[in-house]
Amino acid sequence: MLGRLWAKYWDPKGKHCYVTGGSSGLGLAVAKLLVLKGAHVSVVSRNAQRLESAMKELETVRISQDQVLKSYSYDLITATGAREALDAVCEPHQGRNPDAIFMLAGSCHPRFFIEETEETMKTQMDQTYWVQAWTALEASKRMVRDKSKGKIVFHSAYIGYITLIGYAAYGPGRMAIRALADTLRQEFLLYDIDIHIAFPGTMYTPGYDIENATKPKITLKIEETDPGVTADQYAKGLLQGVQSGDFHISPDLLGNIFRASMRGVTPSNNFFVDSLWNFIGRSSDMAYVR
Amino acid sequence: MLGRLWAKYWDPKGKHCYVTGGSSGLGLAVAKLLVLKGAHVSVVSRNAQRLESAMKELETVRISQDQVLKSYSYDLITATGAREALDAVCEPHQGRNPDAIFMLAGSCHPRFFIEETEETMKTQMDQTYWVQAWTALEASKRMVRDKSKGKIVFHSAYIGYITLIGYAAYGPGRMAIRALADTLRQEFLLYDIDIHIAFPGTMYTPGYDIENATKPKITLKIEETDPGVTADQYAKGLLQGVQSGDFHISPDLLGNIFRASMRGVTPSNNFFVDSLWNFIGRSSDMAYVR
Repeated sequence: MLGRLWAKYWDPKGKHCYVTGGSSGLGLAVAKLLVLKGAHVSVVSRNAQRLESAMKELETVRISQDQVLKSYSYDLITATGAREALDAVCEPHQGRNPDAIFMLAGSCHPRFFIEETEETMKTQMDQTYWVQAWTALEASKRMVRDKSKGKIVFHSAYIGYITLIGYAAYGPGRMAIRALADTLRQEFLLYDIDIHIAFPGTMYTPGYDIENATKPKITLKIEETDPGVTADQYAKGLLQGVQSGDFHISPDLLGNIFRASMRGVTPSNNFFVDSLWNFIGRSSDMAYVR
Repeated sequence: MLGRLWAKYWDPKGKHCYVTGGSSGLGLAVAKLLVLKGAHVSVVSRNAQRLESAMKELETVRISQDQVLKSYSYDLITATGAREALDAVCEPHQGRNPDAIFMLAGSCHPRFFIEETEETMKTQMDQTYWVQAWTALEASKRMVRDKSKGKIVFHSAYIGYITLIGYAAYGPGRMAIRALADTLRQEFLLYDIDIHIAFPGTMYTPGYDIENATKPKITLKIEETDPGVTADQYAKGLLQGVQSGDFHISPDLLGNIFRASMRGVTPSNNFFVDSLWNFIGRSSDMAYVR
């Protein structure tokens, strides 16, 4: 808390920021904000056509002719794709690693578990976990090798805190990526690499409409209480969290409640005894008072 | 809490219990207990040689000549493997689905993230998540189709509650399997299928020695505070949890603290404000008082 008074606010100006999933939705919104703040921005996405229109949008908000704005089409769900994309993105910057990587690619296809297939299960793990894990693995190895500082920003979702019926294929990847970020925060204290992870809820993006097409009615009903935000609104909160140095970023009411309790929907075995366990568990958290 | 007074204690006697990873460690320990309690037990594991010696052990503890004790060698990290194993296991039981499935196969290979490779990352996801997810998918579809009640028991680990340096490849799968179990508990209330998930810590098994061979020194140091248990000890707690109807099973001190707080090692953004969020988040838990 007090840390905020003297903490250095991270400034993207003049930094090379690599944004995955940067052609639409949250990725594009974050890329735009970064351009507005004077960063060099590289966006990667699968869809070449969407990339083209995204680049036009980014060009309209550039604040200096010196800003390097580039786009590349790669599929990041394999280690090879992640490696090739990173090579391409670094090329106009004399091969130097990006100063910040915003991993915002992904997609969500909810349905009941008993309607899942081998393919849908694998696809959701690819789109929630591997699409970020491979870039993180490749980038962090290079950063450690080159002794370059930097930021790696993951994204999960409310579902990474509280799992919910309808997300049997999606939720595991969202929680897995949280676990990866949590682990890397510890390991990368050694290397001056900052880890962040954002937890958006309902966000009105093109992906949200796709998601709702397969979403079970019960899941839609439960989610009615989430007022939702636009990608632009969420991007602001996300970037502010990154600039302030927050690790888990949840710039909204529900996200904060989920983050701080993080019990999810696991029922207590015994509420009163569990309150005691909870008190003990949380007391270790005092070590982090700042 | 009061529920315990009138809750029906589940009795494995005469039930068909399918145990994956049943040839050693926790799987074998649970299989033995189930045999001792009069269940029909099928064990599946990759290693045919170990299966043979496991079967000899199980035969020594049978309490009736009517008990059907069988073993099968399958690799369960693919959907096909899970399907074929399930077919084989059901065959001596007139094709009926198992009454309870204990998914205890898996392995752990800790190391620093920057030492992970594409292969080690994939293997750990296979051994923590897919090895259970495919069996759960295949079995639950059959159970819903056949309207057969039953129990599906997953296993995670302390690391599924609190991630830790050294477990960058293992932790995500352990948290993913928790997310899957959490989601299925909700969905399967519809079908009278009970979901359970166990969270062991240090357990002195053959797998523990393999795990320590690659474990970073800092991880070993942190884990010194965990006294550890034998597989037989843990199996007792696990089975008791299943019989009592506990969803998250953590029969030891550290497991309970981690379970009830479940904040893991994510630092607070602001301890005092987060305590308020935590209070709000936990108050919803009152709904589960029993």
